[in-house]
Amino acid sequence: MDLRKSENEGNFDPNQSGHIYQMALDIGGSLAKLVYFTDNEDCAIEGKDGISPEKAVAKSKGSKSCAVLRGKLNFKIFETSKIDDCLEFIKSMKLHLGGSQRQENPGSQTTAVKATGGGAYKYTDLFKERLGINLDKEDEMDCLVAGANFLLKVVHQEAYTYMDGQKQFMDVDHNDLYPYLLVNIGSGVSMIKVEGDGKFERVSGTSIGGGTFWGLGKLLTKCRSFDELLELSYRGNNRVIDMLVGDIYGGTDYSKIGLASTTIASSFGKAISDNKEIEDYKPEDIARSLLRMISNNIGQISYLNALRFGLKRIFFGGFFIRSHPFTMDTISVAVNFWSKGEAKAMFLRHEGFLGAVGAFMSSDQHELKKLLLNEVVQQAPSSVSCTVAGELHGEESIECRVYSA
Amino acid sequence: MDLRKSENEGNFDPNQSGHIYQMALDIGGSLAKLVYFTDNEDCAIEGKDGISPEKAVAKSKGSKSCAVLRGKLNFKIFETSKIDDCLEFIKSMKLHLGGSQRQENPGSQTTAVKATGGGAYKYTDLFKERLGINLDKEDEMDCLVAGANFLLKVVHQEAYTYMDGQKQFMDVDHNDLYPYLLVNIGSGVSMIKVEGDGKFERVSGTSIGGGTFWGLGKLLTKCRSFDELLELSYRGNNRVIDMLVGDIYGGTDYSKIGLASTTIASSFGKAISDNKEIEDYKPEDIARSLLRMISNNIGQISYLNALRFGLKRIFFGGFFIRSHPFTMDTISVAVNFWSKGEAKAMFLRHEGFLGAVGAFMSSDQHELKKLLLNEVVQQAPSSVSCTVAGELHGEESIECRVYSA
Repeated sequence: MDLRKSENEGNFDPNQSGHIYQMALDIGGSLAKLVYFTDNEDCAIEGKDGISPEKAVAKSKGSKSCAVLRGKLNFKIFETSKIDDCLEFIKSMKLHLGGSQRQENPGSQTTAVKATGGGAYKYTDLFKERLGINLDKEDEMDCLVAGANFLLKVVHQEAYTYMDGQKQFMDVDHNDLYPYLLVNIGSGVSMIKVEGDGKFERVSGTSIGGGTFWGLGKLLTKCRSFDELLELSYRGNNRVIDMLVGDIYGGTDYSKIGLASTTIASSFGKAISDNKEIEDYKPEDIARSLLRMISNNIGQISYLNALRFGLKRIFFGGFFIRSHPFTMDTISVAVNFWSKGEAKAMFLRHEGFLGAVGAFMSSDQHELKKLLLNEVVQQAPSSVSCTVAGELHGEESIECRVYSA
Repeated sequence: MDLRKSENEGNFDPNQSGHIYQMALDIGGSLAKLVYFTDNEDCAIEGKDGISPEKAVAKSKGSKSCAVLRGKLNFKIFETSKIDDCLEFIKSMKLHLGGSQRQENPGSQTTAVKATGGGAYKYTDLFKERLGINLDKEDEMDCLVAGANFLLKVVHQEAYTYMDGQKQFMDVDHNDLYPYLLVNIGSGVSMIKVEGDGKFERVSGTSIGGGTFWGLGKLLTKCRSFDELLELSYRGNNRVIDMLVGDIYGGTDYSKIGLASTTIASSFGKAISDNKEIEDYKPEDIARSLLRMISNNIGQISYLNALRFGLKRIFFGGFFIRSHPFTMDTISVAVNFWSKGEAKAMFLRHEGFLGAVGAFMSSDQHELKKLLLNEVVQQAPSSVSCTVAGELHGEESIECRVYSA
């Protein structure tokens, strides 16, 4: 399976890409995530020994008489507040007309599409009226877990740790995957104890999440987008506004309880005594303090929940992370600090699409899912050739080819 | 022991109040807390049956030949950034010249004063130069715990719960006090597992504390003081800016995982999609969201730590709380929500002075401390007449009489 960034991002032509087999939506509080699969009508002769690395998933049924399917999993993000953009994209791609989920009535133009997230409920009438799509609702937590389990099992080196500026990619042994804590950082944060396929419990969460970073950041810095705010934070210095232990202790550590002088004692605490207005602070310093405050808090609450259930591994997903070095570093350091090195923060390449992938995989009708699971999952990890080039940033779409080698 | 609000607050006259026996300081990141004891030179005849309710603690030694001591514990707060006000107050009250801790060298004007908090280190030279005071540093956590233990044991109905707008005062059985979690919410937050006198461990904390509320609040609302911000929050509506579960789910609950439509999904999350600048929001709504975000987060992390160590009772102290109904309600609801009713949030009347009282009690030389502990603690709770009238707000000073009945 290859999830490779395509060269023609943003210029995707459905006619070139061939038949669309499936789409699924995850509409959250801030972002709507769309996943859709396209084959490229490139067929090959089926044969156990004769499958080239480029021809992979056996196609049991389809409009063409191909014996082997090769295609792409495409990812696309929209702001939920601009849900019209999402509708327009689906329309322009004719996604609402294709797919194996088209209802059986041949005269009907109604397509059933798997959808999760609160927006699947909120926008159900809108999708029906504008596109004739029936949103077939799947539970948000079910989808997050299904998506994470699928990606961790199927995609080569989906997971990685981040420490001291270095990503360390790894394959998780399928037999040693469970239990783990899944922390999905969307607008809010959900923390889910996962013990197996479909076996999980949402054990905690926090309202201080990506929506808080973006919402407070927008108010404080007048940034226009989440990515602009992230970019700002990269250049900022949190020590300008955060009250450090050293600020309280006159530059020294509070060593008796293991707090260094550089430890943040109070996020934004310096703003109390500084005789400054909001305009007197650099937006980048504010963004940095905000990111650090939120990432650290999520890391801490995650660790406390992992500890509570004896979970050694914490996987962080959701679009808040955006593979952003400073975010991952803060979360990793927080988990490491609070657990005294006992628990490990891990990140996912497809962090933002867990729910959408889970919804995509939730269709019982869909032969692709079965094929993917049968063909890929049943192979030993070492025999599956899966690589991911490039990460998901902002609102770019990423096209991915799906095949097994 | 009576800690009663005096009628002449702010007009305290040291000459009327008599000899000053002791003072202690707790200088935190935002606030400096001063506690000092004065007797009022009112003597009575010692006798087990003949002591009136107004004459209480036997005085074993002193400048007068009184057999019984009656006096006041005085509390005073200053902003740490205006530490000069604190110095001026001490000077005007001649606190730096009195006290039983005056060093033995009769020619010296140097007084040793117990002090805790980071400011005890940061301002040590300043106090020496300006007032000739040697700050005798005591560990911050030691003092918080000593202060909390002392107040819980000695003061009648020091602790209370807060639910549905009602305070329920209670005496904690001395034999059933430990273990408990002490959460001190200053600029930052410390969480301490307390197992006995001097037996404790700082197990956690968070940088999202009172300094964050005040610092972010100042930037977002242009409030001039913590109390103004609290007052604003009282009138605000957090639903204007917070993204609720219902906002994501189109007005419905996410009932499968027990999240009501009114649950906050993302603090400040609505600011993302609202086409508004900071000025377009009412300061009171911002203050309310901020207070709710911070109180809820502290309640949650506190609960997770209480759970970790099997602690059923959590005492919340620190000047963040200010007996503010909405703050206490949010913390109580958070602890109740996350623990499913198993853990209980409790508050302390002298919330802001735990460290200062602890520092005050830390002097070995001081006979008052011994007397208080001997005379009051050794009595059964029911036979100690302790009442507190009024709560501590803002920067008022409160005078308190100290006697046992």
